[in-house]
Amino acid sequence: MSTQLKDARSGNITSAMRKIANSEGVTPEFIREGVAKGNIVIPYNNSHRDIKPIGIGKGLRTKINANIGTSGDDVDIDKELEKLNVAVKAGADTIMDLSTGGDTDRIRKIIIEKSPLPVGTVPIYQSACENLKKGGRISDISVDDIFNVIERHGKDGVDFITVHCGVTLETLDRMEREGRLLDVVSRGGSLLIKWMRYRKEENPLYTYYDRLLEIAREYDMTLSLGDGFRPGCLADATDRGQVQETILLGELADRARKGDVQVMIEGPGHMPINQIEANILIQKRLCHDAPFYVLGPLVTDIAPGYDHITSAIGGAIAASAGADFLCYVTPSEHLRLPTIEDVKEGVIASRIAAHAADIAKGVNGAIDRDIRMARMRKELNWDEQINLSLDPEKAKRMRSESPPSEDDVCTMCASLCAIKIGQGV
Amino acid sequence: MSTQLKDARSGNITSAMRKIANSEGVTPEFIREGVAKGNIVIPYNNSHRDIKPIGIGKGLRTKINANIGTSGDDVDIDKELEKLNVAVKAGADTIMDLSTGGDTDRIRKIIIEKSPLPVGTVPIYQSACENLKKGGRISDISVDDIFNVIERHGKDGVDFITVHCGVTLETLDRMEREGRLLDVVSRGGSLLIKWMRYRKEENPLYTYYDRLLEIAREYDMTLSLGDGFRPGCLADATDRGQVQETILLGELADRARKGDVQVMIEGPGHMPINQIEANILIQKRLCHDAPFYVLGPLVTDIAPGYDHITSAIGGAIAASAGADFLCYVTPSEHLRLPTIEDVKEGVIASRIAAHAADIAKGVNGAIDRDIRMARMRKELNWDEQINLSLDPEKAKRMRSESPPSEDDVCTMCASLCAIKIGQGV
Repeated sequence: MSTQLKDARSGNITSAMRKIANSEGVTPEFIREGVAKGNIVIPYNNSHRDIKPIGIGKGLRTKINANIGTSGDDVDIDKELEKLNVAVKAGADTIMDLSTGGDTDRIRKIIIEKSPLPVGTVPIYQSACENLKKGGRISDISVDDIFNVIERHGKDGVDFITVHCGVTLETLDRMEREGRLLDVVSRGGSLLIKWMRYRKEENPLYTYYDRLLEIAREYDMTLSLGDGFRPGCLADATDRGQVQETILLGELADRARKGDVQVMIEGPGHMPINQIEANILIQKRLCHDAPFYVLGPLVTDIAPGYDHITSAIGGAIAASAGADFLCYVTPSEHLRLPTIEDVKEGVIASRIAAHAADIAKGVNGAIDRDIRMARMRKELNWDEQINLSLDPEKAKRMRSESPPSEDDVCTMCASLCAIKIGQGV
Repeated sequence: MSTQLKDARSGNITSAMRKIANSEGVTPEFIREGVAKGNIVIPYNNSHRDIKPIGIGKGLRTKINANIGTSGDDVDIDKELEKLNVAVKAGADTIMDLSTGGDTDRIRKIIIEKSPLPVGTVPIYQSACENLKKGGRISDISVDDIFNVIERHGKDGVDFITVHCGVTLETLDRMEREGRLLDVVSRGGSLLIKWMRYRKEENPLYTYYDRLLEIAREYDMTLSLGDGFRPGCLADATDRGQVQETILLGELADRARKGDVQVMIEGPGHMPINQIEANILIQKRLCHDAPFYVLGPLVTDIAPGYDHITSAIGGAIAASAGADFLCYVTPSEHLRLPTIEDVKEGVIASRIAAHAADIAKGVNGAIDRDIRMARMRKELNWDEQINLSLDPEKAKRMRSESPPSEDDVCTMCASLCAIKIGQGV
């Protein structure tokens, strides 16, 4: 089987590339060239189920991902499917199923079946869960356990997988020599480190990286090289472990591309505002412009309950500086598995960040809707203002809860509405 | 009577300067020098009622303001007092009473009496309301009406007033020659323009600026030079009208300082992310480092219902680049007069922005609470995590709504908690 990357290199414009070009308002050749260079990825398992393919990378609209899925403490597949629906409706571009509770094989299959968007997973979670369920320890996971799960995800139609290949003895050593406040906050990273420590062996996702590439190529699963050493607090940001891992991920990205496997890079995490731009530059340079998928960054550690806002700030700055793909963060981050309402809030906050960044980086047509909104504000056309809103339902509800005495204004300024005063001049 | 500025220039360290130095962790001399240079203002009416004085400006913690007050369509003084309490509790540094409905004299007096924080107003609103109530037109407002209201606010103890002195025939002409999508969205600005147009006269706040300085000096009311030409949509940002007004405000700031009157400058507004840093630099240069008070900036126009988030993004970037004072924006912006809950959401979002910016610009001690939070996360100490949160009540509620099966984790990851796994290594 071919991959989007192999096709692009051979000069073939695939049907996915054509669809993406159409929805982004660029030429199919622009997409093909970006995929060929590895600046754009198309997470689209070659089972090619009926989803809208999306492109992530240079020159394209910033995309956002919504994580859903059960945990050991909260297993309710109907709730997760409702989260899927809410995330789709609120405007997510991809879905990751991070389920770690219940029958994860079944849950994954259902989510893939129901999702109109590309689906990603973190297979190592399943390897760990299956082993723990059998009463084993994390160190009992065999190398085959790890790769068999990855193969299963490919067969099921997963479009992209997070694999923490950069969590190696070398990066771990660098991190520990410097010392960290909050150590490793990546679940996948911490699982692999525990495995490596007990067995005194190198990370199998690194040692057998070619085996991983083979599976990824077979299904054209895009690799999302996970950042096991992403900082979990502001004080740990941009430390030696994190930068060392990025260097390694850059090398692994080269190997993936040589093997016709599409690849993107994951990034921080918790980070002070003044470090974000430099982090994007470093990733882009070290990973030769591979698409950059960031979680947050969260620009302060002290706002649990509001981490959709802390990450919207960081995400907007990151995407303005060149990050291509934002993983949403919900108000529940650091507190609990998100509720359905949290999922919606998280997606909207991420969309605001991505959209504001697209305007800042001059993405084709990004500002058009804002211009239409400004025109409708000038006309005091409230119905159209509501239609143009990111969340028309909420805008409509809020306005209707506080009806103005004159239809053409709102209760904030009432008859002292600046726009209305201006019209009378 | 003296003013903080006059005292600072004479080498006197006032009791307010001492208190501020203490709460900011800097020397009293640092505050005195900043006030003397006009880089720091202390909005503190010389009636010196019992409030905690605050400093706004260079080298100090970024401050945030919460607007409250009635409108013609929503007059409920108890609700506004509840908003005051909520804003204070959520961590606002100042309160602006923007009331335009009901008995605004009485409302202002009550808010000043009840507020433990400095209070600001926009006197031109009252001049307009009083005139309209009498059945007059905006153009009927006399010059004395305008200055008498300002005098009344000074007597009542108002600590800072927004005065749109830069809305002149010259700036208006510049704006109109270029053309704008959304014209003027500042209430004060639009009122003055209407007045100027009908009467074919210059803005009295500009013509009689010395009269204004006299009143401000008498009560040591800090002038907040309003940005009548702030952009109301992204497409209008950083246009000629806006920049022309900033030049003029810089000149007026010089005159204020010469007259021993403390002065800060107001800024945009709606603005693409990539223009924010340049706007801060321009304001700081043109206004000779006068403290900069920004509304937002809102980084997209299409998110009514979520403008606390669009402005938290812009505010964090602005404050990181040097803005000193953020005016909060609530989820109700562009839709209605904010509810009590909206006020809380708006203050918290602004605090996140200000705090994240303070870390970025290296304000003394700003990161300390984040470091403590990281330590508590490492220790899986949930009670302390909640105590250290910006909104402990919300964090506590969210966690308690989804109780984990093991006390030391949360339902997001349950037994696969990365930090817990890391502890076992």
